[in-house]
Amino acid sequence: MNRKVSPVESANSHHIEEIEVRGHIIDSLILPKILDLITAGGGSFRIKNISIGQARKDPSYALVEVEAPSEELLHDILAQVNDHGAVITQSRDCALVAADMDGAFPEGFYSTTNQRTEIRAGGHWHPVEDQEMDCGILVAGDGLARCVAMTDVRRGDPIVVGHVGVRVLPEERAQERPMFEFMASSVSTEKPKGIVIREIARELLRARRGSGRTLLVGGPAIIHTGSGEHLCQLIRAGYINRLFAGNALATHDIEQALFGTSLGVRLDQGVSIEAGHEHHLRAINRIRRAGGIKRAVETGLLTSGVMYECVRHNVDFLLAGSIRDDGPLPEVITDTLDAQRQMRAAIRDVTFCLMIATTLHSVAVGNLLPAWVKVVCVDINPSTVIKLNDRGSFQTVGLVTDVEPFLRSLVGELKQLETQA
Amino acid sequence: MNRKVSPVESANSHHIEEIEVRGHIIDSLILPKILDLITAGGGSFRIKNISIGQARKDPSYALVEVEAPSEELLHDILAQVNDHGAVITQSRDCALVAADMDGAFPEGFYSTTNQRTEIRAGGHWHPVEDQEMDCGILVAGDGLARCVAMTDVRRGDPIVVGHVGVRVLPEERAQERPMFEFMASSVSTEKPKGIVIREIARELLRARRGSGRTLLVGGPAIIHTGSGEHLCQLIRAGYINRLFAGNALATHDIEQALFGTSLGVRLDQGVSIEAGHEHHLRAINRIRRAGGIKRAVETGLLTSGVMYECVRHNVDFLLAGSIRDDGPLPEVITDTLDAQRQMRAAIRDVTFCLMIATTLHSVAVGNLLPAWVKVVCVDINPSTVIKLNDRGSFQTVGLVTDVEPFLRSLVGELKQLETQA
Amino acid sequence: MNRKVSPVESANSHHIEEIEVRGHIIDSLILPKILDLITAGGGSFRIKNISIGQARKDPSYALVEVEAPSEELLHDILAQVNDHGAVITQSRDCALVAADMDGAFPEGFYSTTNQRTEIRAGGHWHPVEDQEMDCGILVAGDGLARCVAMTDVRRGDPIVVGHVGVRVLPEERAQERPMFEFMASSVSTEKPKGIVIREIARELLRARRGSGRTLLVGGPAIIHTGSGEHLCQLIRAGYINRLFAGNALATHDIEQALFGTSLGVRLDQGVSIEAGHEHHLRAINRIRRAGGIKRAVETGLLTSGVMYECVRHNVDFLLAGSIRDDGPLPEVITDTLDAQRQMRAAIRDVTFCLMIATTLHSVAVGNLLPAWVKVVCVDINPSTVIKLNDRGSFQTVGLVTDVEPFLRSLVGELKQLETQA
Amino acid sequence: MNRKVSPVESANSHHIEEIEVRGHIIDSLILPKILDLITAGGGSFRIKNISIGQARKDPSYALVEVEAPSEELLHDILAQVNDHGAVITQSRDCALVAADMDGAFPEGFYSTTNQRTEIRAGGHWHPVEDQEMDCGILVAGDGLARCVAMTDVRRGDPIVVGHVGVRVLPEERAQERPMFEFMASSVSTEKPKGIVIREIARELLRARRGSGRTLLVGGPAIIHTGSGEHLCQLIRAGYINRLFAGNALATHDIEQALFGTSLGVRLDQGVSIEAGHEHHLRAINRIRRAGGIKRAVETGLLTSGVMYECVRHNVDFLLAGSIRDDGPLPEVITDTLDAQRQMRAAIRDVTFCLMIATTLHSVAVGNLLPAWVKVVCVDINPSTVIKLNDRGSFQTVGLVTDVEPFLRSLVGELKQLETQA
Repeated sequence: MNRKVSPVESANSHHIEEIEVRGHIIDSLILPKILDLITAGGGSFRIKNISIGQARKDPSYALVEVEAPSEELLHDILAQVNDHGAVITQSRDCALVAADMDGAFPEGFYSTTNQRTEIRAGGHWHPVEDQEMDCGILVAGDGLARCVAMTDVRRGDPIVVGHVGVRVLPEERAQERPMFEFMASSVSTEKPKGIVIREIARELLRARRGSGRTLLVGGPAIIHTGSGEHLCQLIRAGYINRLFAGNALATHDIEQALFGTSLGVRLDQGVSIEAGHEHHLRAINRIRRAGGIKRAVETGLLTSGVMYECVRHNVDFLLAGSIRDDGPLPEVITDTLDAQRQMRAAIRDVTFCLMIATTLHSVAVGNLLPAWVKVVCVDINPSTVIKLNDRGSFQTVGLVTDVEPFLRSLVGELKQLETQA
Repeated sequence: MNRKVSPVESANSHHIEEIEVRGHIIDSLILPKILDLITAGGGSFRIKNISIGQARKDPSYALVEVEAPSEELLHDILAQVNDHGAVITQSRDCALVAADMDGAFPEGFYSTTNQRTEIRAGGHWHPVEDQEMDCGILVAGDGLARCVAMTDVRRGDPIVVGHVGVRVLPEERAQERPMFEFMASSVSTEKPKGIVIREIARELLRARRGSGRTLLVGGPAIIHTGSGEHLCQLIRAGYINRLFAGNALATHDIEQALFGTSLGVRLDQGVSIEAGHEHHLRAINRIRRAGGIKRAVETGLLTSGVMYECVRHNVDFLLAGSIRDDGPLPEVITDTLDAQRQMRAAIRDVTFCLMIATTLHSVAVGNLLPAWVKVVCVDINPSTVIKLNDRGSFQTVGLVTDVEPFLRSLVGELKQLETQA
Repeated sequence: MNRKVSPVESANSHHIEEIEVRGHIIDSLILPKILDLITAGGGSFRIKNISIGQARKDPSYALVEVEAPSEELLHDILAQVNDHGAVITQSRDCALVAADMDGAFPEGFYSTTNQRTEIRAGGHWHPVEDQEMDCGILVAGDGLARCVAMTDVRRGDPIVVGHVGVRVLPEERAQERPMFEFMASSVSTEKPKGIVIREIARELLRARRGSGRTLLVGGPAIIHTGSGEHLCQLIRAGYINRLFAGNALATHDIEQALFGTSLGVRLDQGVSIEAGHEHHLRAINRIRRAGGIKRAVETGLLTSGVMYECVRHNVDFLLAGSIRDDGPLPEVITDTLDAQRQMRAAIRDVTFCLMIATTLHSVAVGNLLPAWVKVVCVDINPSTVIKLNDRGSFQTVGLVTDVEPFLRSLVGELKQLETQA
Repeated sequence: MNRKVSPVESANSHHIEEIEVRGHIIDSLILPKILDLITAGGGSFRIKNISIGQARKDPSYALVEVEAPSEELLHDILAQVNDHGAVITQSRDCALVAADMDGAFPEGFYSTTNQRTEIRAGGHWHPVEDQEMDCGILVAGDGLARCVAMTDVRRGDPIVVGHVGVRVLPEERAQERPMFEFMASSVSTEKPKGIVIREIARELLRARRGSGRTLLVGGPAIIHTGSGEHLCQLIRAGYINRLFAGNALATHDIEQALFGTSLGVRLDQGVSIEAGHEHHLRAINRIRRAGGIKRAVETGLLTSGVMYECVRHNVDFLLAGSIRDDGPLPEVITDTLDAQRQMRAAIRDVTFCLMIATTLHSVAVGNLLPAWVKVVCVDINPSTVIKLNDRGSFQTVGLVTDVEPFLRSLVGELKQLETQA
């Protein structure tokens, strides 16, 4: 394997580097994780200095010497421990290389995490803006740094390479073990969910009262399961600021509004109507004939449902296309890079994100959000929730449960909280 | 394979038999199914006479000649079509053979389905009592017939052999396509469940008002998910007449009552307490020291929870043992044949059965119930629901959903129905 | 609901229509299904004439009068029974309406199934080309008819409206119950899969020997599970003619080729390397720098793996974009409508389709394929397989199994078959 | 909640206790875990002394003072940290209380883990025999200590109470990160399983060559999936020393041997035969008539299959009963406590355990095995594997895969290893 890896430049020629870690590194498992990564990566370590806080609130500090048999392995190890908050002790500015072409980074580029990151330039540490995982860091002349996606690199952009002069500040586990942390611990179908739903309700209320912004990412099961009206209530009550979905959610919602069916089932009586599949297509066709969802609301063609409420209550909705779409509806963004760019812009101020019954959109949005945005991912299929949990933030809660009763309970909890307030 | 099958005696020597089918055999798919079984089983058919009802409410009739290349294959085909309501036209009494040993049927015994069945004796058709699948039929001298389990056969019992003189009366799909039939059509996580839950509430209310008896078969997830109190409310309101469960449900419920935890989670706050596993064992130990659940309620040791409510409200509970039990609690029936016998006796008058979050107990009870008892099986894991659905009755509804919100919604629906009434 | 449905024009004003059905309508369940749809749709029927084949091989015929309380309901019922092969007996040509705008059908358009379909024009029945579900039918002046997607409609195109003059010829169940039909009967994790895999191997061999074309639709799990080499063997042996996938499969494959890892796991030793996620991004970056996958093969940068074998063995690959893509690789088609159009063109001659471990791409391709193309969908997650099975063709087999041993066994079976031949 | 907890006696009256931990406590995550448990349990800690090994191979040591607001909470915390290897520094013998009744422990009994445990008696540490979780410890006069199940306690037995004088020696993660540890890290359907299967083959070979004993715990899916012959090969080749199963596996296996079907499917051709369900019952009936499985082999009635091979090759088989059994077969142990006792006796010398496609039996056996027995749990349903993984040992590997190809590959790997040797 190693023969295939192109050598990565580094100023260090002894295959040894000194790193330091600070914070609640013992009980947050940061130090054990770092020592583990060094050994697993083929290196060895020597703890040169360690001071452990006597009580839980006291921070700790460790100075560790890392040695590896080759420069490449050392580089790989540093890349990994850097992502967990270890900082190379040598005080040097980050290295910048100008992009030599559009749409690609220079070799050896620093690849970002979703954690708060700082770069050192001109002898000072600067925060990185627009934090997002799997990007590069573009640094303007004045030390202004921001994440940039590969596809958005322009020739000449100064891009950070290597790990020197970059530090990651991982989210620490909260001292008080609040609900989010407890819940985030694992994926299980058997946890008491009433508590979790109450906590989500509190988050929604907090966001609405304060300056928070809530994003709902939803799949079509919200409609088939008969939960559309619950979501409408959340929208009307001002709990949802943005809606990201695909063609399917919007189409089933509109089919339900126009024909009373969703995927061939009349939701009021539970009676299956086979012509429903036709309804699906006819619904799209009518909206296309009307010139789009907003126009259909304006002209009085569309008078109920989730999309109707979004238009009426100024909830920004973003419909991202996929290759399995019928139609699609005119508002669907069919270019996936376009959709990513528009989602990126629309999440900048999001503080809370509820992902419901969609793997594709949840993973896509999870890739874009920084680690400190609280995310709740709800799906009856554990595999979706497991995928999201790989995001590995204490701020991500996976909930294996059923959409309809979840949303119904959430609406109920909010009503109770509102009357208490 | 055929060489291994011991020949089964039969009076017919032409490898041909005539069968007849009556009822809504076209739109209930009975005739197509029967013709399919004949061909699939290696035989061929000739429709000698058919009269099809012109409208849906009119019954139909078909007389079909079945031919097979061997006596054995003919026997196998007749066994199958018989289970779907086809009756051999020759008017003969059923054949009886005395059991030659305890605990086993004679070779060639008639193996029962869970459908209404009649046997012909003394020239008349008699209903079979205690209908249960996978049993034999024991016929007393006066034509009194009942299902008997293999293990309960006693030497000398007259047991039906072959298919002559036996007819099955399959449940027909209801004309009005009521909720149960609609819902039973398939297993899906995406159906509108609000409707289904409302219908279950109506069944519970109907049973409580009339002479129905409701059986709840439950697994421990009812307790871990924090749904115990919902079940307590159902018990207090008189909706549950019997409870079948295992050691785990009772233990977690009692742990919750004694220590406020279930499996290491304090259900009121959702905080994980690792000593919880110890609590589990200590709860069992205390009940054993107290002399059982009922004694623990009487002495004031146990003052809340599902088991407490069962004792207080005279709900018969039956705890069946399994090899993964800790303890177990004194009331647990550790012999599985004993447990089967006691369950069999306790379901005779059951008209509605709610199975929640347990595969083992649900399948066990599903095996004992006749096809006309309405069954709702609720589990978040589709595989459990699929297994139950193989029971293949229009009276069985599988619901892939989450226990806690399901039970919460059910309690809510019942309260609404009660106020309406 | 009905108030919302716009009336659909129809020449019939008596709310009665006569339909006829031919073929193996009893044992193929076609007639029962049709009678069921009429009643479920709110109509009633009278069987005016029926002749049932005496033996299984004899075709049957039924003439049925359908009556409905309103013109709309009658239309809905006819739409449904038409999809199952019932044909309106009145001999009239199909009705055509010119599209009044680009990208939308006229109201009342005929919505296609994936079954063979014919339209009547100039007094003769003409086959519909490019059969695909959820399209409209465009009829050229000379009776040349083809399916057209909504988005591809151009103003002035003559589009079929209503059901008169359209007939569907459903695939009949094979007489001999071959493997495909047996396997397609249901989704189960517990069937004997050795037999199924052998049958798939036979299909691949038949296609390679004859004029068949095999399409593989694959997800990235093919690479993570260490199955890439099995797929490479299928490609090198000439069993795969087209590959449809997304950015993820190609990227993980190339990461594996360049770095020996896939998603942070070295596949040869099973050792987890956390820098792997970086490798993922670096792999994409290199291919972008190289100008694409084909260029990377030509320049010697990419020397192994699935994509390499595709380039070397002239397997057309089509990479369709999604909103969760990193990068993406230069060959990825980022516009979803473009991707659909290119997939549509590339499946015209496909006779066998193997879908492995991808829900998104499988459903997308399933929507495009006509019902008579044999499809095998393999996934360890039953929910994917269930979604595909909704396609409802006897030609679709769902297999809940694990990718790596499936592909390994398939390669093994093919080697055995080759030596036997 | 606290009011309900009966106070547990303790010699300590300051709500403070000093504990010490030794070993690879940092990189094995033991110390962080312990500090976490103290805080989570409502206590606080002060690290009085810590010495951290400079390199990975050097052991570490920590002396920690634990304080809690009440005696009860302190007790709970000590119970938890004790399970993770922390030892109360005060050098006192363990406390013993004589059981005051049969079948129950005295209040305050020490509840065991599945880790190696020692008790202090007469000033010396003694190993605990028959280590098993959720038991008590019975100490004979001479310091001989062993685990005892609640149901097996006899009045007068001296039972350990409290945590003083008890120490747990948790399995440490291996230094070399061998396969078992790597694989045990998490449950995933997407790992490269070829490597895992190879490693399992090596374990089987090592056990056969040395003094190891291999236990297979299996469910009926082994037979339905057509994997019976693979298991037969393992038995014939001497890789399996014990077989634990239920009535279902044995019955389906015998049905297959007698009739060529399993659950209505002829496994050689994959053709469904509905009479199969009858075959199931007839198979049990014949074995009951024959006097049992062994007798059926001796008399020549049973001439193939898994049970046949067990009898022929002196593999001890143990069939444990459950309430969903038909029949059951004569060898089935219908009393669950009996079955537990016999399983307990039969696992004493087991060194490797393969659990395949059974949740009930896997969990039951998992409860009995000590932590150092290597366990591989194979199931296509992730929920089974997740349940087993809660056992929380580095020695337990969960594999989400399909039974048939798993066993086929395992047999193949063993053949390769044998020829290499």
